[in-house]
This record gives sequence, C-alpha cells and structure tokens, in this order.
Amino acid sequence: MSVTAAQGFTAAGIAAGIKENGNPDLALVVNTGPRRAAAGVFTSNRVKAAPVLWSEQVLKGGQVSAVVLNSGGANACTGPKGFQDTHATAEKAAEVLGRGAIEVAVCSTGLIGVLLPMDKLLPGVETAAAQLSEHGGEKAAIAIKTTDTVHKTSVVTGDGWTVGGMAKGAGMLAPGLATMLVVLTTDADLDSATLDKALRAATRVTFDRVDSDGCMSTNDTVLLLASGSSGVTPGYEEFADALRQVCDDLGQQLVRDAEGASKDIRVEVINAATEDDAVEVGRSIARNNLLKCAIHGEDPNWGRVLSAIGTTSAAFEPDRLNVAINGVWVCKNGGVGEDREKVDMRYREVHIVADLAAGSETATIWTNDLTADYVHENSAYSS
Amino acid sequence: MSVTAAQGFTAAGIAAGIKENGNPDLALVVNTGPRRAAAGVFTSNRVKAAPVLWSEQVLKGGQVSAVVLNSGGANACTGPKGFQDTHATAEKAAEVLGRGAIEVAVCSTGLIGVLLPMDKLLPGVETAAAQLSEHGGEKAAIAIKTTDTVHKTSVVTGDGWTVGGMAKGAGMLAPGLATMLVVLTTDADLDSATLDKALRAATRVTFDRVDSDGCMSTNDTVLLLASGSSGVTPGYEEFADALRQVCDDLGQQLVRDAEGASKDIRVEVINAATEDDAVEVGRSIARNNLLKCAIHGEDPNWGRVLSAIGTTSAAFEPDRLNVAINGVWVCKNGGVGEDREKVDMRYREVHIVADLAAGSETATIWTNDLTADYVHENSAYSS
Repeated sequence: MSVTAAQGFTAAGIAAGIKENGNPDLALVVNTGPRRAAAGVFTSNRVKAAPVLWSEQVLKGGQVSAVVLNSGGANACTGPKGFQDTHATAEKAAEVLGRGAIEVAVCSTGLIGVLLPMDKLLPGVETAAAQLSEHGGEKAAIAIKTTDTVHKTSVVTGDGWTVGGMAKGAGMLAPGLATMLVVLTTDADLDSATLDKALRAATRVTFDRVDSDGCMSTNDTVLLLASGSSGVTPGYEEFADALRQVCDDLGQQLVRDAEGASKDIRVEVINAATEDDAVEVGRSIARNNLLKCAIHGEDPNWGRVLSAIGTTSAAFEPDRLNVAINGVWVCKNGGVGEDREKVDMRYREVHIVADLAAGSETATIWTNDLTADYVHENSAYSS
Repeated sequence: MSVTAAQGFTAAGIAAGIKENGNPDLALVVNTGPRRAAAGVFTSNRVKAAPVLWSEQVLKGGQVSAVVLNSGGANACTGPKGFQDTHATAEKAAEVLGRGAIEVAVCSTGLIGVLLPMDKLLPGVETAAAQLSEHGGEKAAIAIKTTDTVHKTSVVTGDGWTVGGMAKGAGMLAPGLATMLVVLTTDADLDSATLDKALRAATRVTFDRVDSDGCMSTNDTVLLLASGSSGVTPGYEEFADALRQVCDDLGQQLVRDAEGASKDIRVEVINAATEDDAVEVGRSIARNNLLKCAIHGEDPNWGRVLSAIGTTSAAFEPDRLNVAINGVWVCKNGGVGEDREKVDMRYREVHIVADLAAGSETATIWTNDLTADYVHENSAYSS
C-alpha cells in the first residue's frame, strides 16, 4: 500500500550502505503520470538541511516526478558541499529516470553535521531505480526508518481515487513538523494549487499538532504527489477530508512510536476564545517536562497543568479553569475538584482536557510522557 | 549568616508539622528596624498561589516587617479558602509580633492544589516567633527546603553595610523565576524605590536566567528587606553590584542542586544583535530536551544546538553560526568545525558558546542536563 496504493506510482527501498549496520536506507518514489502535480510543506526551522533548501525550490515549480529519500544522514549543517551532494542526488535520479532534475525532490534524515557517503548513495539511486515496482511502497516505507521501531503507512480510498502515503519519525516531533519525512500520493486528477491548499489545511491540524518533545527538526518534509491516473477529479472537500484522514493516521502512528514513550497523551483544550489560544495552551501543556514526568508516573498532577496554562498569553481567568484527566474533573474553578484517586492511569492512552471557560474554540495536541528510556535513547549515542 | 548576616534582622526555622516527615517546614524572618523598606519580585505565571497574591499587595506599600515562609504545601490553586489561610497566617504573625498584618509577607512552597494544615501552621508561627534570634538565619534557610539537598545562603559585605540572603528551589527553575523562594536582607539605609530598582536589575540577569527545566512555578517570590540599622546609605551602583553578586551566587547554588542533574550547563550567547535576541537563543538552547540528553551522555551534539537556534526569531544567518562546546569550536560557519573528539565532557561543568555573528550583545543562561534521575524524581511521587 503506502505510496503505491494510488495508481500511477512506483517505488523501491534498498540498502545502499549509507547506514553502517546494513539496514535499508534509500527509497525512491516515482510518479508515472500522466500528471506530475505536487505540493510540499517544510520545516519552519530557520536552520534548514540541504535537501529542504533544494526541495523547496523544486516545489516552486509545482511538479514532482520523483522523490529520493535517504536515512542514515540528515545532510544538515553541511555547507555548500552538502547542497552540492543533494543536487548531485537529484541529477543522478533524473538521469536514470529520464526526467529533469528540477522535478526531483530529495529528503534526508539522520545525524546532523555529517556529509553523506556519495560513493554509496549515487550507485544506490541506480539500484533503486532498477527495482521500482507498483508494489514497492512497503519497501520504501521501511528504507526511511531511523529510530522508528515500525514503518508507517496509511491509505484512504475515495470514489474511484485513492490517497495513501508513508511516514518516518519517532523523535524530535514538534510544531512546524517533526523529523518527519512524509510522502503522500494520490491518483486523483488535481492541480498543484489544489494540492497545496489541501495539504496545508491537513498538516495544520495533524502533523503540526504532534509535539512529542518540543524539538523541531532541520529536515521535516511532507510531500504530496498527484498522478491523475484515475481520471477522477474529486470535489475539494471530499479530497481534503481523505487527505486529512491519512495525515491524522500517520501522525497518530508517529506518536505511538515516539522514542522511549510509555504514554500517548491527548491534550484537548476546550472553550478557548480563539483557536490560536487553544493551540498555544495545548502546546504549553504538552511541553511541560514536569507534567510529562508525572504522567509517566501515573500521577494525575493537575497543578502542573495549571502552571503550564499560566505561562501562556491565552484569554482565561485562573479561577474559572477546569481540568479533567481520563474523564475525572480533578480541577474545578481553578481549585480542587473531584477526588484524584478516581483517575485510572494504567493504560497507555491518557486524555487531558483543559477547559479555559473563555469561548467556544478547541484544539488537540498529541504528545508523550517523559521517561528514562527517552533520556537513554537520546544520550547513549548521537542521533 | 543568611538573612541574619545584616544587622536589624532576626529569624527562626522550626518543624511545625506541615511536612508529614517531621522535617523543618516553617521559617520566620523579622525586620527589627529602624527602617522597614522592602521590594519584591514575583512569578510571571498568571496562575498565582494565594501567598503570591497576598504578598504582591503587601509590597505595594513598600514596607515589610516580617516574612512567614512554609514548605510542605504551595497553597496554590486552593481558591478563596487558600487566600483566607494566607491572610490568617499574616494576621497571626502580626499579632504575635505586634505589627500590622499588611506588613507581613507570606511565601509557600510544595504541592499545588492542597490546603495547608492551619491547625499546625498557626501554632507554628507562635513557636517560631518565640525562637527568633539574630543567629537564626541558617535555621530559616533549612526550614524552607523542599527537594533541595542543601540549604542555600549567601552574604556580601560593603563598606559598613551587608547584604545577605537565603534561597530554596531545586526544580521548576525557569524564567520569571523558579519555584524559588528567596529572602534577601540588608542593613543599608535605602528607601523602597531604590530597593525595587536594584532588585529588578539584579533578578533580570541572575534568577531570571536560570532555566533548569523550562517550567515556571506559581509561587516564585524574591523579597528584599532593608533595616537601615547600619546607618549607611551606599551609592546605588555599589549596592546594586553587591545585591547582584548575592543573587548570582544563590542562582548558581540553585543550578548546582537542580533535581536529578549531572551537568551544570552555561549557555553563553555572543555577538547577538540585541540582548533580547541573546536571551531568546540562550533559552531555546537551554530548553532543548534532545540537547540536554546529549549533554548528559557527554556527546558534543552541536547539531542540536543549531536546530534549537533555528527555532528562534533572533537575527542570524545559518551559514555564519559558530558553536563551541567546552572550548572546542565544533561548528564553524553553520557546518562542521573542529574535531568533536577533542571535546572533553567528563566534568560537571559544561560551557556552550553560541556565536550568532550578528552584533555585539551577549547573555548567559544557566541550565542542567536531562537525566533518568530527573524523570524519577518527578514521576515517582507528587511534588
């Protein structure tokens, strides 16, 4: 399924030798047409990896023929040489596929500050091209894993058309996207302006609201490619809804596979004056290390929720705030509410509701707890 | 020494039974005059504990006769009853000391959302008043500890006058101050306007730049009391400098005692366009969980420094950034610099320099690494 669920796409995933352990590390996705419309969303980090700088230029043309993705190295903070390497990668794919390099997007993920082994990557592009298949989606999804424990794919089918995709990312999830590489494909017949509108609308309420550890990557990229091969042009709302479902599903898979996490936390902010207020408060709660530790310890420490809300500029009165944890309103009107002993926190899913009592807007942010395993995974070796 | 290093002050610290383990939990500091000038700085968290709301009103009068401090309960998010309890505490101290309640500041620290045991606290105020002594500063400093492993005091002596103080706080250190209670005293003869100016100047570059875990408390309070009993009025700069030294020393002690930390990290941002830029970048680096884990693992992962800088709005060009870790410029011009193998990270002190190459302003933020012990301390029990 994955990126080859929709018609008009082939893909491959191989071990090119970029990773020292010999695991798959290079993926290729090709749009076989007839259309090559595309849209992209990139990290808002101002320190952008070479492949992001390159792919941003590619997407300005609104057409993408192919995407080369590698794990095993982020090619970030690698200067002019790093950019030349990305360019050479696109040129190599263009050459073997008979397309223009300016229609080849490139994505990289791995350690920052290390040049890629081009003597392995470039031959790898040739090998991958030789293995392109309409059934190659799973292999491509596997080849882009870094610390991911599972590969992530999703598919939604419309009336005569399909949208599907793959994602990688398990840490550094944060607003403005995660070290998250996502390639979405559809055989719907849509132009790049429509794709762009739908993609921005979908990522705004899905990937952008996944905030595992508050750290924003230099390499985040979400691409959407349309082949038009179904010959069907769905209505905008119908397509946008399906795309949002795929993004939501992939986003949830990222949360569930977050590094070292033992809890998946849904922070739902309700009755906010504005959606921006709701997002700001949700993020503040999601990023509070003390609360994340408490959740890990299965302690419904609502005081830490209130202290996180208090650091925001959102509209609220402290003595009107209410907080529920797993359905129990442990804080009412800014003070002690129902008995915290009633809160059952044995399960992986945790649901926090913060009621600002200041309006009618809402937003949900997804995050994880903070664990000794997270510390271990991110301190024991460079990543 | 502590709060009784300066003349004109008495203090006491006792076990009132607020803490279930029987440890000291109530401190009293009294200004015996002749002056009772005072200034205060409070948390910028919009969810403020009852004692903060009360003491803010007290400080508006510019006079403080006494401070009652308790550990074992924050009296935050406790509604009208919590505020009544704080008021009753001030009334009790006023009664036994023969002062006005509106000149009695109150500070509390401990778990949020729990009412204080007033049946123990009010008798405790009487007991503490009976034990007031010019040598009581150490006992007071000990009584305000929560998860602190050591009590914290500092003294600087001027020409015929002294400024000293005590602090508590080991977690939740963050901008707008920490769950930090600080009482500073001086026998210099200064009015409240001068104290206020000097205190704000001092906290801005000391306590406000300690950011152990990015979490801001509901209870942070820093008070400065002047007795005037030395009869000496030092020049403003001389006094402000001594006060800043005391605040800096206490701030450093807070960092060194941060919960679960194994490294003390000095993040120095240089060549910023503005001081605000330098502070924003310093805080962003100090709050990056991935970097804090890497430092714990003694991994000079400068890519995480750059990715943290990239999330700020500070003026900089990515390809002009330089980063040094413990004296080794591991990142030059946004890319690979000196050999990272040269970085020696065996010691507790870690020094990160981020050169923005955008101006001449500088700021230093103090933080800690992120460790499994931090997770344990903040997940194993409510605090």
